[in-house]
Amino acid sequence: MNKGIIDCDVHPMPQHIDEIRSYMQMPWKERHKGGGRGLFGNPVHGARLDAKPTNGGPEGSDPEFLREQHIKPFNVAHAILLPRAFCNLHPDPDFATAVAAAYNDWQADTWLGSYNPDGVFKGSITIAHQDPLAAAKEIERWAGHPHFVQVMTDSGARAPFGQRQYYPIYEACERHGFPLAIHPGTDGMGINIQPSPGYPTHYIEWHTCLSLAFQAHLVSFITEGVFERFPGFKVVMVEGGSAWLPTLMWRLDAEYKALRYEVPWVKRRPSEYLRDHVRVTSQPLERPDQDKYLLNTLEAMDAENIMMFSSDYPHWDFDSPKLTFPKLPETMRNRIFYENARELYKL
Amino acid sequence: MNKGIIDCDVHPMPQHIDEIRSYMQMPWKERHKGGGRGLFGNPVHGARLDAKPTNGGPEGSDPEFLREQHIKPFNVAHAILLPRAFCNLHPDPDFATAVAAAYNDWQADTWLGSYNPDGVFKGSITIAHQDPLAAAKEIERWAGHPHFVQVMTDSGARAPFGQRQYYPIYEACERHGFPLAIHPGTDGMGINIQPSPGYPTHYIEWHTCLSLAFQAHLVSFITEGVFERFPGFKVVMVEGGSAWLPTLMWRLDAEYKALRYEVPWVKRRPSEYLRDHVRVTSQPLERPDQDKYLLNTLEAMDAENIMMFSSDYPHWDFDSPKLTFPKLPETMRNRIFYENARELYKL
Repeated sequence: MNKGIIDCDVHPMPQHIDEIRSYMQMPWKERHKGGGRGLFGNPVHGARLDAKPTNGGPEGSDPEFLREQHIKPFNVAHAILLPRAFCNLHPDPDFATAVAAAYNDWQADTWLGSYNPDGVFKGSITIAHQDPLAAAKEIERWAGHPHFVQVMTDSGARAPFGQRQYYPIYEACERHGFPLAIHPGTDGMGINIQPSPGYPTHYIEWHTCLSLAFQAHLVSFITEGVFERFPGFKVVMVEGGSAWLPTLMWRLDAEYKALRYEVPWVKRRPSEYLRDHVRVTSQPLERPDQDKYLLNTLEAMDAENIMMFSSDYPHWDFDSPKLTFPKLPETMRNRIFYENARELYKL
Repeated sequence: MNKGIIDCDVHPMPQHIDEIRSYMQMPWKERHKGGGRGLFGNPVHGARLDAKPTNGGPEGSDPEFLREQHIKPFNVAHAILLPRAFCNLHPDPDFATAVAAAYNDWQADTWLGSYNPDGVFKGSITIAHQDPLAAAKEIERWAGHPHFVQVMTDSGARAPFGQRQYYPIYEACERHGFPLAIHPGTDGMGINIQPSPGYPTHYIEWHTCLSLAFQAHLVSFITEGVFERFPGFKVVMVEGGSAWLPTLMWRLDAEYKALRYEVPWVKRRPSEYLRDHVRVTSQPLERPDQDKYLLNTLEAMDAENIMMFSSDYPHWDFDSPKLTFPKLPETMRNRIFYENARELYKL
């Protein structure tokens, strides 16, 4: 007698994911929509709610809307664009390199091309740092372009950025006068190591600790002697915080006093490399209750010479050019909001 | 014809490891002696060269020598002892727990027993945090002992310390009034995750970045709501640096403003938990070129109420009670060098 067959692996699917969500309580229901701490969302909202373009596209996708909402009201002379390709988390370096190249071609055609008659937009060459030789070629490909002003990669990585495997990237950056911008967002994702003693639980914890990778990368750049090996190479630390900078340098300078014999290629006090080689963007600016602590910290890090304003438009943790800083000395304000970037990017 | 046999795996050994070292150049030769960045050495020297006891034993092993060199000259009323069992890096929790227990028994017999007629020495209960239930039992075992004043563990870990698996430890600490001291030294070793985006290359880099694990653990304690769940629980961060504390709290407070909905069990601003629940020891004190920056940082972190002096005797990066700090306001100095520890440890 034929009793039929038993299939031991069949996959049912909801007609819409909301069917599943209808069985969840808040706040899990809302968080599941945001993608948890996945690539494309956070438990609150990834972008400013008011940054949705009138044409219905994603936030930051409409150049005219962006000009109206951000460029004109704040008198932004140049916006340094950092598209988010998320290619640095992928195990396949060929795929990652292809994604990076596509973002660069797209950027050249649109934001740095047809969207950019007045040259207000300046772009970043996305690279896949998993394959430094391919990344160096991608940098070559854009050398001399009038609107690409820097190379960019993610702080998420499998090894600190001072290490030797990355040097083809730095050599290409130095040769073509491109600073390397490092931006957070793929830390602990895909192939990248989470820079904490184990994986954080919540988005607030993960997001707060994004600054840790920057601290580790900076110590690595300096102690490995990258700035001695590539004297024209410059690094821009974007959205990694900045207030930790002076105290980390006090710590590293003290270690150097005792341990310099281990790293004889480090010729100067670690903190001395900052002014010549490192710039830090301002957002998210750490704001204590009392302005005097922030002003003291800005002075201690020589913000007047190394900090550059950034807003992170259109993301949720946007810093307004008008509201973010307390009253600054005139020279410091001018250098942070204009001169330091003009000099670095030769604008 | 018997041609004999060929053995394809035979191990030759030098008669002494110096035979191998005679083929190395400096500085590798010296570093190989120190154990590289292994457990028991650093490329310079693990202990003060002048801390070798006259009886020839290891530094820190002779109570009379320690009294003569450190306790008497600096008028130390109590020395809080933190033995280094290195048990938190072992994959076998039973072995790790046995090592921890042995260190506690030894401590009770010697430094807190026969070496301690005047009670100057106060001890730390070593635990293996890989096995929180066994650790809680070990804490129970010493409850009521007159000279154990805290529990201690390493900052090296496989998960941030706010996470739930550790709660039996915190419950036991709270029940018996023991603060939990966290001390660096096994980060990235054995089973422990290295709190950087990949492994650092040099000792100076690894050692500088020891503060990163403390930053991650502190954020985890607060965002997971440990101090709400265990209102009597206190944490002492030992040798993890301190100057990063205010700026990390500015950052976390700002994140909390936007993301508090994700962690509704965090009832107060993150930074507000410090005064009630967290103490930080002073060594290695970050010293900038200008004292005003340090004084500002001490004020910003409320060092007067949360910092406790520590020397790290007999290690190479010892901070002298006389030389380490700039001139402090009298009340702050008294609280850092005495009162904060007296209150915490009920001395």
